[in-house]
Amino acid sequence: MIAVQRILIFHPQQGLKENLPPDLQPRQSEEFTWLDLAQPTPEELELLTSLFYFHPLAVADCHHPHYRPEMAQYEDYVFLTLRCVKPHQRSLTVAINVFLGPRFIVTVHHEELEFVNQLWHHYRQDPQLFQKGADFVLYSLLEPLTETFFTFFDHTEGKIEYLEEEIFRRPTRQILNQVFTLRRQAIKLRKILGAQRDIINLLAYPEFKSVKPENRVFFLDIYNEMLRLIDQVETFHDLASSTVEIYLSLTSNRLNEIMKVLTIITTIMMPLSLIAGIYGMNFHYMPELEWRYGYFVVLGTMALLAVVMLAFFRRKGWF
Amino acid sequence: MIAVQRILIFHPQQGLKENLPPDLQPRQSEEFTWLDLAQPTPEELELLTSLFYFHPLAVADCHHPHYRPEMAQYEDYVFLTLRCVKPHQRSLTVAINVFLGPRFIVTVHHEELEFVNQLWHHYRQDPQLFQKGADFVLYSLLEPLTETFFTFFDHTEGKIEYLEEEIFRRPTRQILNQVFTLRRQAIKLRKILGAQRDIINLLAYPEFKSVKPENRVFFLDIYNEMLRLIDQVETFHDLASSTVEIYLSLTSNRLNEIMKVLTIITTIMMPLSLIAGIYGMNFHYMPELEWRYGYFVVLGTMALLAVVMLAFFRRKGWF
Amino acid sequence: MIAVQRILIFHPQQGLKENLPPDLQPRQSEEFTWLDLAQPTPEELELLTSLFYFHPLAVADCHHPHYRPEMAQYEDYVFLTLRCVKPHQRSLTVAINVFLGPRFIVTVHHEELEFVNQLWHHYRQDPQLFQKGADFVLYSLLEPLTETFFTFFDHTEGKIEYLEEEIFRRPTRQILNQVFTLRRQAIKLRKILGAQRDIINLLAYPEFKSVKPENRVFFLDIYNEMLRLIDQVETFHDLASSTVEIYLSLTSNRLNEIMKVLTIITTIMMPLSLIAGIYGMNFHYMPELEWRYGYFVVLGTMALLAVVMLAFFRRKGWF
Amino acid sequence: MIAVQRILIFHPQQGLKENLPPDLQPRQSEEFTWLDLAQPTPEELELLTSLFYFHPLAVADCHHPHYRPEMAQYEDYVFLTLRCVKPHQRSLTVAINVFLGPRFIVTVHHEELEFVNQLWHHYRQDPQLFQKGADFVLYSLLEPLTETFFTFFDHTEGKIEYLEEEIFRRPTRQILNQVFTLRRQAIKLRKILGAQRDIINLLAYPEFKSVKPENRVFFLDIYNEMLRLIDQVETFHDLASSTVEIYLSLTSNRLNEIMKVLTIITTIMMPLSLIAGIYGMNFHYMPELEWRYGYFVVLGTMALLAVVMLAFFRRKGWF
Amino acid sequence: MIAVQRILIFHPQQGLKENLPPDLQPRQSEEFTWLDLAQPTPEELELLTSLFYFHPLAVADCHHPHYRPEMAQYEDYVFLTLRCVKPHQRSLTVAINVFLGPRFIVTVHHEELEFVNQLWHHYRQDPQLFQKGADFVLYSLLEPLTETFFTFFDHTEGKIEYLEEEIFRRPTRQILNQVFTLRRQAIKLRKILGAQRDIINLLAYPEFKSVKPENRVFFLDIYNEMLRLIDQVETFHDLASSTVEIYLSLTSNRLNEIMKVLTIITTIMMPLSLIAGIYGMNFHYMPELEWRYGYFVVLGTMALLAVVMLAFFRRKGWF
Repeated sequence: MIAVQRILIFHPQQGLKENLPPDLQPRQSEEFTWLDLAQPTPEELELLTSLFYFHPLAVADCHHPHYRPEMAQYEDYVFLTLRCVKPHQRSLTVAINVFLGPRFIVTVHHEELEFVNQLWHHYRQDPQLFQKGADFVLYSLLEPLTETFFTFFDHTEGKIEYLEEEIFRRPTRQILNQVFTLRRQAIKLRKILGAQRDIINLLAYPEFKSVKPENRVFFLDIYNEMLRLIDQVETFHDLASSTVEIYLSLTSNRLNEIMKVLTIITTIMMPLSLIAGIYGMNFHYMPELEWRYGYFVVLGTMALLAVVMLAFFRRKGWF
Repeated sequence: MIAVQRILIFHPQQGLKENLPPDLQPRQSEEFTWLDLAQPTPEELELLTSLFYFHPLAVADCHHPHYRPEMAQYEDYVFLTLRCVKPHQRSLTVAINVFLGPRFIVTVHHEELEFVNQLWHHYRQDPQLFQKGADFVLYSLLEPLTETFFTFFDHTEGKIEYLEEEIFRRPTRQILNQVFTLRRQAIKLRKILGAQRDIINLLAYPEFKSVKPENRVFFLDIYNEMLRLIDQVETFHDLASSTVEIYLSLTSNRLNEIMKVLTIITTIMMPLSLIAGIYGMNFHYMPELEWRYGYFVVLGTMALLAVVMLAFFRRKGWF
Repeated sequence: MIAVQRILIFHPQQGLKENLPPDLQPRQSEEFTWLDLAQPTPEELELLTSLFYFHPLAVADCHHPHYRPEMAQYEDYVFLTLRCVKPHQRSLTVAINVFLGPRFIVTVHHEELEFVNQLWHHYRQDPQLFQKGADFVLYSLLEPLTETFFTFFDHTEGKIEYLEEEIFRRPTRQILNQVFTLRRQAIKLRKILGAQRDIINLLAYPEFKSVKPENRVFFLDIYNEMLRLIDQVETFHDLASSTVEIYLSLTSNRLNEIMKVLTIITTIMMPLSLIAGIYGMNFHYMPELEWRYGYFVVLGTMALLAVVMLAFFRRKGWF
Repeated sequence: MIAVQRILIFHPQQGLKENLPPDLQPRQSEEFTWLDLAQPTPEELELLTSLFYFHPLAVADCHHPHYRPEMAQYEDYVFLTLRCVKPHQRSLTVAINVFLGPRFIVTVHHEELEFVNQLWHHYRQDPQLFQKGADFVLYSLLEPLTETFFTFFDHTEGKIEYLEEEIFRRPTRQILNQVFTLRRQAIKLRKILGAQRDIINLLAYPEFKSVKPENRVFFLDIYNEMLRLIDQVETFHDLASSTVEIYLSLTSNRLNEIMKVLTIITTIMMPLSLIAGIYGMNFHYMPELEWRYGYFVVLGTMALLAVVMLAFFRRKGWF
Repeated sequence: MIAVQRILIFHPQQGLKENLPPDLQPRQSEEFTWLDLAQPTPEELELLTSLFYFHPLAVADCHHPHYRPEMAQYEDYVFLTLRCVKPHQRSLTVAINVFLGPRFIVTVHHEELEFVNQLWHHYRQDPQLFQKGADFVLYSLLEPLTETFFTFFDHTEGKIEYLEEEIFRRPTRQILNQVFTLRRQAIKLRKILGAQRDIINLLAYPEFKSVKPENRVFFLDIYNEMLRLIDQVETFHDLASSTVEIYLSLTSNRLNEIMKVLTIITTIMMPLSLIAGIYGMNFHYMPELEWRYGYFVVLGTMALLAVVMLAFFRRKGWF
């Protein structure tokens, strides 16, 4: 027998076992079984086939979880692919696969997940919780899983307001990149949440066998939280798009400012240079050149011209 | 017994009491009770648990109300989180929590709300109103609460038209910032109103027990007002977006104007400067320099060239 | 008895009266009554209370009609706020309030409305029309009221096509302002038409008591016209937005043209000026200056350079 | 009896007649009648009233057909306003009015329509087709009518791809105008197709009396074609909008290129001109001027400076 | 008998035949028949009529398959037009026509399709698969057909992220063209997938006769994959649009940078040139010219002016 990562087997009379007995048949036995495979090796994933006889397609999905949350129903168990937010990951989210049967639950995830660990210790200390059913374990997982999205949105909402203020202060390309990154995240999370909402909705259906009637309300609760999350992700997307628009209008504003400076400088300097150029010509007969104060008259004219043009631009509201 | 902020206890026969009797059991008694906790201290919030035995989750929400309006149904009471507009607040809206039972209502809000005060004094002076039921108190609160949104929209609609006129007059960054602020407010209020509409819709359902059949029409009325508000917030958002677009098109228009000035100046001045430069060269043999009126011929040529180019630009419609 | 603006009282046997009898009880009498209050004084509006005993809220709405069309149902009558287009008004539309009872109709409007006058004269000349019911009077009002929208859209569609052509001819800020004004009107009319459509839909319901079954088809007809109008207002909005986009792309096109002129001029003139500047330097030893035809060689070089650069720009497709 | 444009009267036993018998009562007779009024004179339109007794409102619509397709149901016949594409028209589409009764069909159109002519000749040669019913004639008209849209879209799809390639090759204002024209056509055709789809949908309803059950499938077929057309017109609109966006991004790209040229030229030429200007100053004591090779040193410095700056811009990736 | 491309005829008792017997009547026989016409000649397409007596309209569609996926139901068979992705094609997708009868399936495609070949060899080696029905053959074709879309999206998602990074690195027109190409593909694939989803939905209906109840789940599976694909194509379109927006904002950012360089250079150089120009004037009396160190004072002033202006621009945050 190969070593498994973590298993909890609970029998109402005999209490909790944490080892895999050699003759365990989790899909027939009266005991409650929770098998958690965190960052499993290929040998550990073998257990899904050798011990539980799960459908090869579902087992294959556990090796390489799909990006999009999904649910597949088999004879007497359900297979779920869900996603939670884990911001340190490159792809922002992490998949968790769940097999839910009448008296067993199997969780597979390729990343260490804090909330799974906490629930695990909670059940280990208080195994009577198993009596609420395997579907209640699933609910207890979904609760903190949706919480990861709320935490993320609380964080990003603050971030987007900070970025917006930064853009008003000084619109740089670096800040804009961050806004685009946030919006791309919103586009992707919206898809995940949409799929997840549909799955939870199915779980909360009265027709759905794997959830006991008395536990249905909990799934409805999660469903409502999903709706709130989708609302949040859409507001979040709208705010990010609005920030991009702010950036663009500030940039176009700034371009106007730059062009004004250029135009003012050019418009003032060019005529003055022309005057200087004219009196730099080498014609033999240029009467002004011989005037006693010609030079100073020209300098004065130049100064006057500059002042007049500045006044003109100010009156047109250019600065 | 700690001191409570404000309480009204009405008994059809015994009339109104404004003190909390030590043996009050508001969830069982025949009297009508309205407890209002405005800017409550933690001790006052304790009453929700010690006196009413409300669900800990709902009490926790009263300490830190959620941003999004919500409704939760418990055995014999409903817990509501609603929002009204209070423009002086940083977040524009203020939360008010309501517990509605068959014969009691509890209101919790962390800001002084004028319309709650007015209703309070109204009930204090005419306690027979309690006979219409606790749900009628709720309706009497919802009426001015939606009114705060209408007042706000009346105000902002005028503001947005003013901003649009200002932008047409002179498109500055400051005015644009105000438009963006308004649009961001519209995005956020739309979400709040959407959630609030769904809640009122539930309250007006025939299946909903906490509202008496004869009072249902009042809630339908509020529901229709919510629909009107959502319509208004969307028009408001469209008008703000339209104003941003006006700004952008005016800015791009203005850039064209600036560039025209620059191009006209450059196009006229550069050839003139070139001519001046040519006759400023020091070649030994430059026949024109010796002409008697060479200087004046050149000046005349320059003036002519300038006039011709100005005419050309005018004919092309540049100014 | 105060003087009323206009009243028609029709009794199948006794014919038409145009004075208000002192004992009239329009809500109980067998006669058909049509009271039209055009630009009413406060005293005339008093009649709504003293004669008809209408609900104070509805009467208050007649003093200051809401912007958004609305319907309110009372015991035995309906109160409608509708809007028609009157382009000379600042707000483009004018409100008309209607009270519709089983045998009476009251119309209140703060502006002279041509189509109401026409209908009034029609009924005065042919009072037998009253036998078709008070609801038929309402239909006869709705017909020309929707017509005002059609007339307006026919007018604006031509206008928007004219503006589009003007923009293609010469994109000025004044024309753009007109397009923005049209689009803002479209946004506002869409909301009014949406609300009006919902009201007409309610009037055409079989459950709706104030409309007789044989007259229902007429209201269905108006309802279809409303759908057509909403379609038109949306096409109209799309065309206006499309025109704004045309303006922006033409402006950006024009900016390119301007910048090309600037760049061509600068690129040709600057090198020539540099050459002139070089031979304007005062070095003691500059051999070219002493050449017999140095001056002409330089002039030729300049001309050649200008031609080469023009050819280069032409080949790059700049003009 | 006035002369009619074209009439076909078919009696199962007596065969086909092409003249209007003086006693014809098409709405009662057992014969099948098809009257086609192409570019009718007012006298010919009179027949609709004098011969068929159609509703005055419908007849009025035949004089000035509405822009938007419509259907009106009367006692025993239906009145349809439809539109087909005829690209040579100013308005792109042409209206055709149809009266469909149990045993007659009347078609009115103010333009010569090729597909009507073809169908006419087809029925003239094979009058037994009338036995399939008047509704089958309508179907036989609708088939080529929708075909006109497909043909138009095939044509425009090729055109839009050509325009897109042209824009990539050389973004001119003329090509952009053509794209805008196509998009405006898409906006208008979408509305027409939407209305036409709703009409066909009604025709295919089991409740709809004027279509025989065995012919219903044909109308469902047309309905599906309408759905395909709406899909096509939306793709077509999206492609046109995408092309506008391509134009704008290419223009802004081009502006960048132009500005780069301008900036490179200015940045290289201005410092050189400054150097030339400095050595053109007339100070009595400027030691460099007396150097033997001062002139050549300055020329070399200028060349070096130009090379350095060109290298700098190349390294920054400006060309 | 003309030679056919490939045929499989399976009889439960008699096994597999790969030749077309002269007396085959595939629509009546008890054998399962699969005829695959890959890149068929007109003679081979003749078989559809001479052997299967398919409807002429469907056969015509096989000659020139429609762009948009479609389904047509005939008496005892269904005709499908489907599309799969084949990226090397100019139009990105390739049509495949399928006739599905109770015991026969005919596939027609004008391109060699790898997945059809594989399925063919699979059936040839294991002909017992025919016992699952002709509809199962269709499912076995649909499975890899949808897979071609998934493969394509996996590929393009990576590509779009690469292009986005490239645009951030260096926004060129070539990269933008690729993004536009991807978005145009998304627009077209969305339409195809939408139509394909509707077809699969119909196939999975309980009312649909050509699919056996036990095989329905497979079609539901394909339907869910279609939904996932449509989700993917929309995310894909959003990401492409977002990339275009990134390009535009980077370009406008870059324009600002270019204009800043131009303005800084112009603003510094022009006043210096003016000074040089002034002292290049030829006035007889210009006292500064005679100063011993006039030249060096002017040079120093110029340097100082340049430094002051650079400092000014730095303080304004221009570089």
